[in-house]
Amino acid sequence: MKIDDSFYMKLALDEAWKYQLLTYPNPAVGCVVVKNGELLSIEAHKEAGHPHAEVNALKAAFLKKHPNDKIKTINDAFKVHEYLMEHHKNFFTDCEVYVTLEPCNHVGKTPACTNLLKELKPNRVVIAHEDLNKEASGGQETLKSVNIDVSIGCMKKEAYDLLYPFIKWSNGTFIFYKMAQTLNGSIDGQISSNKAKAYVHTLRDRIDCMAIGGNTVRTDKPTLDARYVAGRAPDIFIYSKNKIFDKKIPLFHVPNRKVTISDDLFKLLDYKFIMVEGVYNLLDILKERIDYIVLLISPKIRRGHNALSEINMDFEIIHENYIGEEKIIYLKRKS
Amino acid sequence: MKIDDSFYMKLALDEAWKYQLLTYPNPAVGCVVVKNGELLSIEAHKEAGHPHAEVNALKAAFLKKHPNDKIKTINDAFKVHEYLMEHHKNFFTDCEVYVTLEPCNHVGKTPACTNLLKELKPNRVVIAHEDLNKEASGGQETLKSVNIDVSIGCMKKEAYDLLYPFIKWSNGTFIFYKMAQTLNGSIDGQISSNKAKAYVHTLRDRIDCMAIGGNTVRTDKPTLDARYVAGRAPDIFIYSKNKIFDKKIPLFHVPNRKVTISDDLFKLLDYKFIMVEGVYNLLDILKERIDYIVLLISPKIRRGHNALSEINMDFEIIHENYIGEEKIIYLKRKS
Repeated sequence: MKIDDSFYMKLALDEAWKYQLLTYPNPAVGCVVVKNGELLSIEAHKEAGHPHAEVNALKAAFLKKHPNDKIKTINDAFKVHEYLMEHHKNFFTDCEVYVTLEPCNHVGKTPACTNLLKELKPNRVVIAHEDLNKEASGGQETLKSVNIDVSIGCMKKEAYDLLYPFIKWSNGTFIFYKMAQTLNGSIDGQISSNKAKAYVHTLRDRIDCMAIGGNTVRTDKPTLDARYVAGRAPDIFIYSKNKIFDKKIPLFHVPNRKVTISDDLFKLLDYKFIMVEGVYNLLDILKERIDYIVLLISPKIRRGHNALSEINMDFEIIHENYIGEEKIIYLKRKS
Repeated sequence: MKIDDSFYMKLALDEAWKYQLLTYPNPAVGCVVVKNGELLSIEAHKEAGHPHAEVNALKAAFLKKHPNDKIKTINDAFKVHEYLMEHHKNFFTDCEVYVTLEPCNHVGKTPACTNLLKELKPNRVVIAHEDLNKEASGGQETLKSVNIDVSIGCMKKEAYDLLYPFIKWSNGTFIFYKMAQTLNGSIDGQISSNKAKAYVHTLRDRIDCMAIGGNTVRTDKPTLDARYVAGRAPDIFIYSKNKIFDKKIPLFHVPNRKVTISDDLFKLLDYKFIMVEGVYNLLDILKERIDYIVLLISPKIRRGHNALSEINMDFEIIHENYIGEEKIIYLKRKS
């Protein structure tokens, strides 16, 4: 196996994918620091408002070689910046920094990463994908201006797939379809583990709106909140021509939630980040608009109803991971 | 993410899994070399008779720092051993070697790895799983005898899962079930890509015997050879009470192949390495004896017949990988 820029960038990409969709409205970003050939850290941006991937990776790299340094106790992004700027002692000048997205060049909820990198002066910064956000871009120019060697485009396609939800929700709407099934496609009964359920509730906590079919609401009477993670319940869009529902079910009584019953799917575009849950019927209707499918596969064979549908669709697997013992597969429709 | 012994061992394990089942009758083994903190190589044993994982990794590590060295042109295991023994110039004394299986201590088709390591004297050898093969074991003692620091047991469970086919075929029979389906469990028509088909033919080239149901033979009239990779066709075991078959079909006319028609599954135990192909019917019958399921999942949704079965089984996903754009998932039955 080749150990090259792509190898290290892949480590950064995989780490970032662990937090994919959970960083909304920020992009998922991963970062790796290699010092003089030695791999020191692999970190990611985990949640909006928390430190960026670069900050986490620079801090972890410094800690790896100074395990008892005071930085261990500093978590606030601004304070980590400040501390590293003051105490780096040229630690990073023989480092290579691999980052899946061009480091941000503006001060937002957290300070600009390029500003920090400019001071720490790593030998080389390898960037997979340039920043498309005009407000935050210009990072590579800033780095080059202090003679940091900057490479752009390593694993760009994979970085684009990682960045894609951010691109969509920044300029419109990102819609993903979430489904859970057994290995043989059975969708009956309790399929997912508690870990997988908690993950789905974490997703619900992050999204703006959840879309679901009217019959599912009528039959299953789901609450569709984020109680397993004590999270925020999303707005609900019930896709239904028939507007009659039992309004006594808990779904309609979650505080701070808007419920829309409509068969006009264009109304979804009022939201930026949408999860669709259900079997393949809504997928069929929305297939031209679905960006990703998030498929949870429970490692068992079960008799029962099957997800078999009347649709033919081809996908590209853009990433896969584990949620506990279950597989999670991210699919993108092949056009 | 923690960068520790487990991190490097995982790289070795993942590399070895790329050749899982293909190294028969040898075990799949992976090896990583880290020099003074710098990751130099990640290699595996690829095929019986070819160099062991350690030899591939030591060679690749040396080449990484001496890219134009003559060793580049040496591929024979004995000659790589010999060359490294003569020309290492203490290159490896500040190296750590991670290997998924205790280095072999005996000379077989290839020379003993411990013999080589004893000479190269890496600082430390980290072993995931001890050797269970009595003939080849004793490796750790040999290494310790020359004061190499030896650690045993890092990621032992994962190394056991990797080693498991070897353990079974060394002392009895290893049986795996191969299945291909779409995401939604459809098994109709052409599911797999050409790459996946070539992989299945490579498996057929390695196994001793392939078991299949009588009705599949009657209906599909398959040849069940390894023509896509110009490989050796395995013996065939047709599971059927009814012994009447159209003997004119190509399956019965492949040279050097034994075809058994029987409903006595104990006859399978004459073989050491068996692949079962089919839908879930044979899985149901053989479920107590199946060691692994190798499930190829094509990233598409298709209408069509479904693999839905009457059985309930729980699995652990022990590894997953890609064959081109398709996923390959290795499952072990949960007992």
